[in-house]
Amino acid sequence: MKRTKIAELIGHAPENQKVLVQGWVKSHREYPDVSFVALNDGSTIKTMQIVLDANFKAEYEAAHPDQDYKELMKSINTGAAISVVGHLVPSEGKGQTSEVKATGLKVFSPFNPDFPLQKKGATLEFLREKMHLRPRSNTFGAVFRIRSAAAFAIHKFFTEKGFFYVHTPIITGSDTEGAGELFHVTTLPLNNIPKTADGEVDYEQDFFGKSAHLTVSGQLNGETFAMALGDIYTFGPTFRAENSNTSRHLAEFWMVEPEMAFYDIEMNQDLAEEFIKYVIQYVMDHCADDLEFFDEFGHTLNQGVGKRELKARLNFVLKHKFKRITYTEAVEILQSASKKFEYPVKWGSDLQSEHERYLVEDHFKKPVIVTDYPKDIKAFYMKLNDDGKTVRGMDVLFPGIGEIIGGSQREEDYDKLVKRIHEMGLPEEEYWWYLDTRRFGSAPHSGFGLGFARLLMFLTGMTNIRDVIPFPRYPRNAEF
Amino acid sequence: MKRTKIAELIGHAPENQKVLVQGWVKSHREYPDVSFVALNDGSTIKTMQIVLDANFKAEYEAAHPDQDYKELMKSINTGAAISVVGHLVPSEGKGQTSEVKATGLKVFSPFNPDFPLQKKGATLEFLREKMHLRPRSNTFGAVFRIRSAAAFAIHKFFTEKGFFYVHTPIITGSDTEGAGELFHVTTLPLNNIPKTADGEVDYEQDFFGKSAHLTVSGQLNGETFAMALGDIYTFGPTFRAENSNTSRHLAEFWMVEPEMAFYDIEMNQDLAEEFIKYVIQYVMDHCADDLEFFDEFGHTLNQGVGKRELKARLNFVLKHKFKRITYTEAVEILQSASKKFEYPVKWGSDLQSEHERYLVEDHFKKPVIVTDYPKDIKAFYMKLNDDGKTVRGMDVLFPGIGEIIGGSQREEDYDKLVKRIHEMGLPEEEYWWYLDTRRFGSAPHSGFGLGFARLLMFLTGMTNIRDVIPFPRYPRNAEF
Repeated sequence: MKRTKIAELIGHAPENQKVLVQGWVKSHREYPDVSFVALNDGSTIKTMQIVLDANFKAEYEAAHPDQDYKELMKSINTGAAISVVGHLVPSEGKGQTSEVKATGLKVFSPFNPDFPLQKKGATLEFLREKMHLRPRSNTFGAVFRIRSAAAFAIHKFFTEKGFFYVHTPIITGSDTEGAGELFHVTTLPLNNIPKTADGEVDYEQDFFGKSAHLTVSGQLNGETFAMALGDIYTFGPTFRAENSNTSRHLAEFWMVEPEMAFYDIEMNQDLAEEFIKYVIQYVMDHCADDLEFFDEFGHTLNQGVGKRELKARLNFVLKHKFKRITYTEAVEILQSASKKFEYPVKWGSDLQSEHERYLVEDHFKKPVIVTDYPKDIKAFYMKLNDDGKTVRGMDVLFPGIGEIIGGSQREEDYDKLVKRIHEMGLPEEEYWWYLDTRRFGSAPHSGFGLGFARLLMFLTGMTNIRDVIPFPRYPRNAEF
Repeated sequence: MKRTKIAELIGHAPENQKVLVQGWVKSHREYPDVSFVALNDGSTIKTMQIVLDANFKAEYEAAHPDQDYKELMKSINTGAAISVVGHLVPSEGKGQTSEVKATGLKVFSPFNPDFPLQKKGATLEFLREKMHLRPRSNTFGAVFRIRSAAAFAIHKFFTEKGFFYVHTPIITGSDTEGAGELFHVTTLPLNNIPKTADGEVDYEQDFFGKSAHLTVSGQLNGETFAMALGDIYTFGPTFRAENSNTSRHLAEFWMVEPEMAFYDIEMNQDLAEEFIKYVIQYVMDHCADDLEFFDEFGHTLNQGVGKRELKARLNFVLKHKFKRITYTEAVEILQSASKKFEYPVKWGSDLQSEHERYLVEDHFKKPVIVTDYPKDIKAFYMKLNDDGKTVRGMDVLFPGIGEIIGGSQREEDYDKLVKRIHEMGLPEEEYWWYLDTRRFGSAPHSGFGLGFARLLMFLTGMTNIRDVIPFPRYPRNAEF
């Protein structure tokens, strides 16, 4: 007999049909003549009520004369894995339309009193210590189902638009971002690093014959593919060896980075807005129960979003056309605001989260895209405007969290790009292959990046970034 | 005006509609009164013929009195990036039903005589040196469009079946596979590694406070999620620091690893067969032109598959129900075969590629799944059979390449698993979290792994694994 998942069973009209359900016990209430087991199989946050009634007991005892029924019932408790055959019938219980009246039962794994997730109301901090078990909790089950749905939405959106998915490299010997905080990747024996005659590390003996590290972004590699296949996107892990022990930083996180040939900054903004709305709508359509859970109970887990505020925030993004303003306009608005900011606003300084949120939540009351930032606070590859002072960067700002997407039109002019590389003190020779894309068949192009964990925090209302990725990596933590 | 991609234009009936096309010039044939430009934009292997006729010339010259038309024509050659407005009209040329009669033209980037991909017939070896430009060639454009389609097929298949996508960690401090060939990940200064008083590496000062490396498989982490969400899959990069400079090894490659609660080895085989057929069918449906290219010309690139053999090989997999036999049966068949093998066949030794291919291509003439291997040649986590000698492993064997998928039912019994860990000399304490999945709510479960590059080699007929991944990493190569 084929198993039916609980997510599916819930959608079936109960017509006494025979079903096989398998999963883990959430709770077990025993009464003298009947027993109710709440069974979850991970396919949904909901449980299926399994009814073990007097008939079941009589038949079970007849078939298993050697077994103690009382002991059997004891073994079916929180965390036990069981398999149940029965009939799907209408339920008289509250909050459920159907239940399974059991006719057969098998215990794969009995209740273990040491199971750490028995008690309700375990803190996120406690669950973080049990990273290998926490997806069995309601909260983390919901987080990771939403994470999966959002990931699929991303692939679906880009595929339907004719984008190609590119796996840019994880290990790279190219030091093109000029970011200092890199993880070295090596096969040299750390307790006995070979040295050259000058006392330098002898990378000749290393696996790649040169210094190598983990990528911080797939963008530059992605651009080489946009100049060949047109529209591409990456979706893969990126790394920062930043020693930041905060609720906003991870050493390893997944990024989405689309890159489009023949796109200017306007088209880039159109795409970013369409993209993020699509993903949010998809998750609302496909994870209704999990979102409902966070909407109702999220505020009891962390103080990110109040009761019944989460879905309102998602709808806020969906229903508004994003407001587009330049950085210079943003600075003017912030400088004439009556609100006092912790950080002063000055043309030439980067906007802080408080500024971004003011624009979104107080001033425009809609998501905002800020463009045309001062060149000195943005990366070398952004296209220089005619004013010589600003570049065609763009940041998409959301309520609650500030920047969710950062991108730009790229500088396609070889000479201007080389000049920017020099101005920023970067080593031109490291960029030979990147510059080649501007020597051969260069064309206007644009792209942006979305930190996937950042998006998940917005979708779930979780406030600690370690709670939206299966096995978070941060300073002093690479267990599991 | 909105750009239309060539892949889309090809599907439109030519009705003189105005279109905007942008892309890169493949070739340019000039005649006294007319010029034909073959334009590619990466959306398809096909080109769109752009016609620059006498009318166009007259109008262009009238509008641009300062420009030399001859020079303009010279600038439009292989590799140049251009933008064309024109009318989609029926074509009289061979091999195309429509062409674009240009009315407007803009050159983003003129022909550069140094462009390395001008000449036809560049070898794969040559293109491998130009990794940042090779996706602009017909061959690599086709490879990477197929790679993207296959990746989407994988996500679509599992999502439609109710699986959840899990991002297992890339950096891990857990040494659970017992594989020796690991890449260290560290932020310690390699030229001055801090040591403890005993002269050991002082990992206390390292980012993670312990030795860390790049993952070789997401399976064990994936199992913890299968025991929570039911059916899950991973699809991410994995690493081997094997110093193998061959056409079959990469240091960095993407793996797909589904893991299913409540699956036995039979269900595991059903899923593997359905999965691989789905992906192949999807690619045949969505990459017809690219497959046609390899089917016709692949044999001129490498000797993997003969002319017109590729699609036949794909259909061979689709049309047959996979034959399922045990390892012991396979050994008997091989031992009684008239064929002489390079490696002798003996119960207890692993099957070699020549043995696998004999079973598929000569004996059964269909894909084969071999199960129940001797425990000593398989991993510790495979479920022990009642015979005490074999385990519930399975390998899916394909024509041409041998093993494409490896998997097993997992050992769900805590005591048996611990015993296997000891027998294989592995450090039990490293497995505490993995063993927890057998202490709490353990249940029968199974999974398998597919090397994505391996699949791509099968789909395209490419014989060097470095040619099916955007930026291959192998000994002495981490450029770009």
